[in-house]
Amino acid sequence: MASRTPSPTADRAERTAAPDRGAAGERPRRRLSVDERREQLIAVALELFSRRPPEEVSIDDIAAAAGASRPLVYHYFPGKQALYEASLRRAGRELSARFEEPMEGPLSERLYRVMGRYLDFVQSHGPGFAALLRGGSVAASAGTSAVIDEVRRAAHDQILAHLAIPAPSPGLRLTVRAWIANAEITSLEWLAERSVPLEELQLHLVQEFVASLTLTAAREPALAAELASFFADERPDGPTGRLVQDLAALFAVPGILDAVTALAAGPQTVGPVDEASAQATEGTAGAPAE
Amino acid sequence: MASRTPSPTADRAERTAAPDRGAAGERPRRRLSVDERREQLIAVALELFSRRPPEEVSIDDIAAAAGASRPLVYHYFPGKQALYEASLRRAGRELSARFEEPMEGPLSERLYRVMGRYLDFVQSHGPGFAALLRGGSVAASAGTSAVIDEVRRAAHDQILAHLAIPAPSPGLRLTVRAWIANAEITSLEWLAERSVPLEELQLHLVQEFVASLTLTAAREPALAAELASFFADERPDGPTGRLVQDLAALFAVPGILDAVTALAAGPQTVGPVDEASAQATEGTAGAPAE
Repeated sequence: MASRTPSPTADRAERTAAPDRGAAGERPRRRLSVDERREQLIAVALELFSRRPPEEVSIDDIAAAAGASRPLVYHYFPGKQALYEASLRRAGRELSARFEEPMEGPLSERLYRVMGRYLDFVQSHGPGFAALLRGGSVAASAGTSAVIDEVRRAAHDQILAHLAIPAPSPGLRLTVRAWIANAEITSLEWLAERSVPLEELQLHLVQEFVASLTLTAAREPALAAELASFFADERPDGPTGRLVQDLAALFAVPGILDAVTALAAGPQTVGPVDEASAQATEGTAGAPAE
Repeated sequence: MASRTPSPTADRAERTAAPDRGAAGERPRRRLSVDERREQLIAVALELFSRRPPEEVSIDDIAAAAGASRPLVYHYFPGKQALYEASLRRAGRELSARFEEPMEGPLSERLYRVMGRYLDFVQSHGPGFAALLRGGSVAASAGTSAVIDEVRRAAHDQILAHLAIPAPSPGLRLTVRAWIANAEITSLEWLAERSVPLEELQLHLVQEFVASLTLTAAREPALAAELASFFADERPDGPTGRLVQDLAALFAVPGILDAVTALAAGPQTVGPVDEASAQATEGTAGAPAE
């Protein structure tokens, strides 16, 4: 445990005090400025925390990887948790920057490109942060939650900006947040099992977004016009086009076509039979009467 | 801080030592057996932890609500974290029990009933456990993670049992896990904002499962036969029937119908133009060459 009390003015103090000069055995190297040194320590910590869970990374590991002394690291950061949170903030900013995408071209192709960059990030930084995202990490704190929430908010805001729907309904916002959770969980599962190629995951996540958007529009007639212009901009060989073709092929399978056609026709019987059937649908957990 | 060391034999010891008799001011009440007392303390703790975040519940609160002394609580549990975890385990068992559903009737109606019971649980226990599920709770630990993972596994296993697909593919398992995450996130968001009626959420979550299952079958032709029998068992006035009707209405909107029909026809141009278009789809994040 370091007894040194960290302070916001420590950076400035080092300009004259140079506390790292005294560390025995440190290799001579170009002297870093205070800001450079801080950034370097964060970069080194991010690299280590990206590969291993926080409990397997020590301040000594970080000091060694940075070519710095343990007291120097403590001069900049009060302890491992602070360095962990600083590196997570850096990772969060880096990830949020990857969500930015020009407002051009079919929406599903924009999202496809973003997901390529997101999954690339997951591959390089995910292993160390997986426990944090899953919950139950020893390093979880109000600080780490705030970073994660901010990244989710950035993703949510980017998606809504690209959808360009003037006043997104609560239902649409919920759809976007649920899809973001889906992307998180799916990529964490992928990290653990790698059961499908990464580029399949990239395509599937985009297609799941298209499906969720369509379902939301099916519930909210106000979104029908937006959905029409969404589909009108899509291309046959893009993620949406390929999804539509796969579904068309699936629904052309005779058994499926017949069953879906019967469902689409709606309840054909009327009167008492219909009512009994409706009651059966409500089931034991019946919706509250209004 | 209690200095008493908890031990697995403490329950047995109490039968003769009766350590709660000495607590001054305790109201006389029917003496509970050791097991009853332990269960009562867990029940009282669960009630309190369901309503408030763990940092707002003290051992004194629990003792007061249980009509017990603080030393008595410490006799059964080493501290608040242990009581929190015991109450979470109880909640987890209670929730997992709600997933059990007879293997009868259309699948979407079974899931609809389960979701009714799940959302009822979320309403009554969710407020206190929301921070834990979102990550970043001060009470998060390896113990709490294990309980949460077990509930997710129970949900996953129940769904696969109802789907009755002999050897579920990795893609199908991923679909199920992602949908479970969707249900979690969506219900936590609902707890925070209550922006739609609960019975709508119940229906939407089931319909999203149907959509995810359909998308998975569109990717995995081996599932087509399973999907055909799934749709064949569904009823027009059940969640799947209503989804199909809503989608049919949506796709009958002229702009949407035209755009989707054009996409379903696939790329109509061949040769160089098609190739250029395919490259554009790959975009800047292009899939790795194989």
